[in-house]
Amino acid sequence: MKLLDQTRLPGEEVYLEIADYRELAKSIKQMNVRGAPAIGVAGGYGVALGTLKIEAASSKELLRKLQVVIKTLKNARPTARNLPRAVERMERVAHEAVTAEKNVDEIKETLVEEAKKIHTEEAEATYNISEFGADLILSGATVLTHCNTGPLATTGYGTALGVIMRAHEQGKEITVLVDETRPLLQGARLTTWEVQKAGIPMTLITDSMAGYFMGRGEVDCVIVGADRIAANGDTANKIGTYTLAVLAKENKVPFYVAAPTTTIDPSLASGEEIPIEERSHDEVTGFRGVRTAPGNCEAANPAFDVTPHRYITAIITERGIIQRPFQRGIARVLG
Amino acid sequence: MKLLDQTRLPGEEVYLEIADYRELAKSIKQMNVRGAPAIGVAGGYGVALGTLKIEAASSKELLRKLQVVIKTLKNARPTARNLPRAVERMERVAHEAVTAEKNVDEIKETLVEEAKKIHTEEAEATYNISEFGADLILSGATVLTHCNTGPLATTGYGTALGVIMRAHEQGKEITVLVDETRPLLQGARLTTWEVQKAGIPMTLITDSMAGYFMGRGEVDCVIVGADRIAANGDTANKIGTYTLAVLAKENKVPFYVAAPTTTIDPSLASGEEIPIEERSHDEVTGFRGVRTAPGNCEAANPAFDVTPHRYITAIITERGIIQRPFQRGIARVLG
Repeated sequence: MKLLDQTRLPGEEVYLEIADYRELAKSIKQMNVRGAPAIGVAGGYGVALGTLKIEAASSKELLRKLQVVIKTLKNARPTARNLPRAVERMERVAHEAVTAEKNVDEIKETLVEEAKKIHTEEAEATYNISEFGADLILSGATVLTHCNTGPLATTGYGTALGVIMRAHEQGKEITVLVDETRPLLQGARLTTWEVQKAGIPMTLITDSMAGYFMGRGEVDCVIVGADRIAANGDTANKIGTYTLAVLAKENKVPFYVAAPTTTIDPSLASGEEIPIEERSHDEVTGFRGVRTAPGNCEAANPAFDVTPHRYITAIITERGIIQRPFQRGIARVLG
Repeated sequence: MKLLDQTRLPGEEVYLEIADYRELAKSIKQMNVRGAPAIGVAGGYGVALGTLKIEAASSKELLRKLQVVIKTLKNARPTARNLPRAVERMERVAHEAVTAEKNVDEIKETLVEEAKKIHTEEAEATYNISEFGADLILSGATVLTHCNTGPLATTGYGTALGVIMRAHEQGKEITVLVDETRPLLQGARLTTWEVQKAGIPMTLITDSMAGYFMGRGEVDCVIVGADRIAANGDTANKIGTYTLAVLAKENKVPFYVAAPTTTIDPSLASGEEIPIEERSHDEVTGFRGVRTAPGNCEAANPAFDVTPHRYITAIITERGIIQRPFQRGIARVLG
């Protein structure tokens, strides 16, 4: 399995050869692959990869040995819903295959097929998101986005960035303001790279500048992705998103969330229940080996924050745009 | 004249030997010395330094040759009021000395004395700011601050950070949340360094995390410095300040500005008239030679933003705390 190492972009395009599900779990943790939809897809392939390497005399034994694979991948990162959802789906399919009395080789084949299906579905979902979302973007708009939500993050067309790119493809004149997105600079490193490739005019800013441009009336809408959406519409996304939502509300700028329905977690009543990953403090005290703070400097590194639903104008999914009240709209979309 | 090079902190403590006013203007531009009060003090010394090197047969000739010194220093950076104010004060004193029929050597001596006076006054002002401001900080408080406003920024005790340090010295239990302050990371590099030296418990965060902590109710007040304050209380300060003010309002957290009255510019009716410095885009596309964005990436770099007075709870000056309505309070404090 080949994986483009996103931690080294845009400087180097290096592909990692992933031979083992443990390596994949590590790559997810280290964010060589990142983005909620992309780590969902990776998780599916991870289970398939793990299954292929299991030596088992019976389907029951295979299922038993598969548990450690599932647990390892499911817990690689805690916030995005897509990862555990994909892994749980693989687990369910494995159980169904055993129940259907498939043999070991057939089960392995079934899981490989299922991982590919997850991949295809996520990619298709992002295309539909971009189609629905592009209707919200008017020609001439300056669109502010945060983190990276393009093809790299989704294996497909992109969520928030997909919407922007689709609007551009439709011939609309779009300018993108890209938040650099400290600490790991996914905006500066990855979104700029994807937006440049797409030929869309763009300006990179530090996260602290978003308010400046919104306050001057220079932002027409904000569009971000999501890592997990609770039943009431509260949305966990990359740290800094809540701040953008508050700034947008204060300046009467529409604030859109774009995500596949696999990101929605209807089992959580509100965003308060979403687990927030705390990552290594080294990410905050430095950048790529360049230390920015003195030694022994205490730091915090919550990788996500939760934007309460009242700040969100609409949620764009592959099944359509969810308007307020989100509780009802989400329930309807999930059918 | 010796100048601690703040661009190399905290990694290295390097002192620059400044022999010439042009070098000083360059050091101000490059932010080897920075912070509104500190560049005011530096500007005063710069005029003195420039004057000492002038060869003039008459006081009139001295005054004439002094014009280029004054112009160069005054325009080194546009936003902070303290720099042009100090330079203009030096200019006025030079004129007065000529009017008083002092000879060339006496004028030079007068200007050196005046520069020292500016230095002493600014240092004393920050001490008084810290005294007044400390009353606003309760023991047990977590105080969020942005950029660097301690001794390095002021040549004195500090403005916002002076208030925090004074509260700590008074025996109050204070915890500081330090915004790293992209793009130049004055928070990560300088504030952490000063807060550590003062022995105050501290956590470094990225600018995008301030909202996360405010939203969780973990910030008791925000206190920042200022580069220029208009007659109505609108305040220009390091980029990112406006965002903090909006977040503070949304979360009902008091938002304080601490600055000497030399930062106030009563000639400007509102913040809209404050000139905002646009700095090199390289500061945004990288950090210390480590490039973070792809080549040819467009960027913006407004170094300051303006916080409208309605977001500010109180302005702490060396002459007391200015409460709302600021227009009246500022007029009163300026006498």
